[in-house]
Amino acid sequence: MKPIITVAFIALLSSHCFAQNLIKASPERMEERIKALSQFGANPEGGVSRVAYSDADIAGRQYVMGLMKNAGLEVSIDKAGNIIGKRKGKNNNLPAIAFGSHIDSVPGGGNYDGDVGSLGAIECIELMNENNIVTEHPLEVFIFQNEEGGLVGSEAISGILTEEELSLVSSSGKTLRQGMIDIGGDPTRFREAARKKGDFKAFLELHIEQGGFLDREGINIGVVEGIVGIKQWMVTFTGKANHAGTTPMDQRQDAMLAAAKFVVETNRIARSIEGRQVATNGKINALPGAPNVIPGKVEMTLEIRDLDFEKILAVFDKIELAAKTIEKETGVAISYSDLNEDIPAMTDKRIQNLIAASAKNLGLTHKFMPSGAGHDTQDMARIAPTGMIFVPSKDGISHSPKEFTSPQDMANGASVLLQTILKLDKAKF
Amino acid sequence: MKPIITVAFIALLSSHCFAQNLIKASPERMEERIKALSQFGANPEGGVSRVAYSDADIAGRQYVMGLMKNAGLEVSIDKAGNIIGKRKGKNNNLPAIAFGSHIDSVPGGGNYDGDVGSLGAIECIELMNENNIVTEHPLEVFIFQNEEGGLVGSEAISGILTEEELSLVSSSGKTLRQGMIDIGGDPTRFREAARKKGDFKAFLELHIEQGGFLDREGINIGVVEGIVGIKQWMVTFTGKANHAGTTPMDQRQDAMLAAAKFVVETNRIARSIEGRQVATNGKINALPGAPNVIPGKVEMTLEIRDLDFEKILAVFDKIELAAKTIEKETGVAISYSDLNEDIPAMTDKRIQNLIAASAKNLGLTHKFMPSGAGHDTQDMARIAPTGMIFVPSKDGISHSPKEFTSPQDMANGASVLLQTILKLDKAKF
Repeated sequence: MKPIITVAFIALLSSHCFAQNLIKASPERMEERIKALSQFGANPEGGVSRVAYSDADIAGRQYVMGLMKNAGLEVSIDKAGNIIGKRKGKNNNLPAIAFGSHIDSVPGGGNYDGDVGSLGAIECIELMNENNIVTEHPLEVFIFQNEEGGLVGSEAISGILTEEELSLVSSSGKTLRQGMIDIGGDPTRFREAARKKGDFKAFLELHIEQGGFLDREGINIGVVEGIVGIKQWMVTFTGKANHAGTTPMDQRQDAMLAAAKFVVETNRIARSIEGRQVATNGKINALPGAPNVIPGKVEMTLEIRDLDFEKILAVFDKIELAAKTIEKETGVAISYSDLNEDIPAMTDKRIQNLIAASAKNLGLTHKFMPSGAGHDTQDMARIAPTGMIFVPSKDGISHSPKEFTSPQDMANGASVLLQTILKLDKAKF
Repeated sequence: MKPIITVAFIALLSSHCFAQNLIKASPERMEERIKALSQFGANPEGGVSRVAYSDADIAGRQYVMGLMKNAGLEVSIDKAGNIIGKRKGKNNNLPAIAFGSHIDSVPGGGNYDGDVGSLGAIECIELMNENNIVTEHPLEVFIFQNEEGGLVGSEAISGILTEEELSLVSSSGKTLRQGMIDIGGDPTRFREAARKKGDFKAFLELHIEQGGFLDREGINIGVVEGIVGIKQWMVTFTGKANHAGTTPMDQRQDAMLAAAKFVVETNRIARSIEGRQVATNGKINALPGAPNVIPGKVEMTLEIRDLDFEKILAVFDKIELAAKTIEKETGVAISYSDLNEDIPAMTDKRIQNLIAASAKNLGLTHKFMPSGAGHDTQDMARIAPTGMIFVPSKDGISHSPKEFTSPQDMANGASVLLQTILKLDKAKF
């Protein structure tokens, strides 16, 4: 035990030593701006509905662009509708260091998802202004459009947004095409927003965890190892619809019973394997869907997430095997169709280490962890080395008016973001 | 073993002896009329959608009224819209013997449910005409309106239809009120259709089984002991909606998992108890209902049926007890609200025996059994002794275009109905 205690003691000592000399973000300024931004789309029960392209979103973007301009950034809207704020470096031939997040919300969302990273990015610019810091590399602050509706803005920047997607209807009721027009983009020229490999030295995103690990364990900073891959299936259970009064229990081919057994097995298997994989059945429809008819058909979603795509497939294989037994027990056929697939997006190991070192230097505790949620960073990883910084979400609650991150935690995140930018500016890669 | 063989032999012998002298219904005429009636609301894939109050229903009623008039019945429509065909007896001061069924169908229904009993009742009148039979008691043939939409016609006759129910919207899209007008009733005077205890010596209904007992066991006639009671609940599972990516498996309060365990337990308990009870979960809704969100709330129906209402409550008690364990395992609260309750309606033992004797005399096999489905007879049981005759449904399929009963089985049912009417006419009760 002795060596461990010694190391811990030295680590504590060293972080305290460094901590005193570093620039710290302002919890008061972060909180004041979070409160101001929360007025746009505020709901009576708390939180916001600031879905992309809504009036609230458009007004919120104006507010944020005002902050960016006041902080001296050269602000523009790209053809896809993303807000970009540029700050010159000492050597503007170097690739830019980019960072930012989004300010759109889900319907009935909270005040922190995306907002902390957006305002945290602006906070870094304020701190550099206040401390007369000019980086070697030019800087770009990104406020991505419509993150919640499918990472639309970062898809455009990474060049994977398609013409067809523009016809999708977003939570606002507008198509992406119309929405893009309403926020100052140009859907006929959205491809011009695409950036290429080499344009950025790195992309960084500060974000709330949206899970409960940091809060539960009392850790200040999450160093994101990567964004989990997601695979979704529609699972169809085909039995035989029949009269619920005249069909004896042993004569049924009850699709609801088969689906129920499938949910129980999905849960059991996801828990029985070592690791951090998660499996969820979120949506279900039983047909014909009457209290007095045995369901002949059930359609239900299955979603599996893990940082390792092979692990996702291995979990699915076990579920599929268990389903064969359910088919025999119930006389119900079970089939699968692919719904959606996002491959895992790993962050850059070197940047992970810079984030961890920054946290340490600031006297903050940290933990390496996956992101269970999707983020714009996963698109940016297609064209740049990336890093992601998590701060705690109270009780792990997100996409809810109850979402909460303390002013100090927000400031801690912004402080780590600044230190990471400064370290990256000097790093040789 | 010897006595049993002897009894069986004598039974066989005696039924053959009687069988030769009795009037038999015509399989050809039954089949011809079933085919003719099936034209009204015919679906391309077979079967009919002849929902009450639709144009198809109104046209089908015209066809049936034509048959009734041609058979010499005095046809009228009561204030609730039921079709009534009267035939005088020798002593018209005696209470009437009533019999009949319905001709409306579920959407996407078959050609036999209700129709066999309606045309079978008319067949009995034809046979009496052909054989110059005049009963002591007057006879009344009933074609009840809107059986499938909640036994509306027989509720009116038994005096339990309420003013509020008239505002309910039926499968046709019309309110019961409007529907009643369209079929020749008068919703402002529907209470005048109510009949009272003593008006009928008995009510009899011939119907397809809608289950698979008779077909599977090769038995000709089901003597219905009663119509099962039904109790339905809405079961609400309240957990915590959360992000399907960021919430570890052991931190979830997954309402879908709790509902799934509940379905598995419902099935296990209903099967584990001796008897013919059935329990069904037919309808489910998971909220918010997205593939990437752990459901925070699930609403699901539970229905239990049995001929003994105490048995229904005992099955529910066991399910409720099992649900308490599920609550502990999942952290999800489970609550119940009553949806619907129909008490069991027993048929008259004396009439059961007359039906059994009639089948035997006709050389037909029979079996005493419950009806798992609801029927107009259960309302008629409020004001008269009742009896119900079942004929086989191929593979037990009902409420489907695949519904099928053979011409001979239909004729067998009508023959038993006629013999039962004739026996009742002479019976001293």
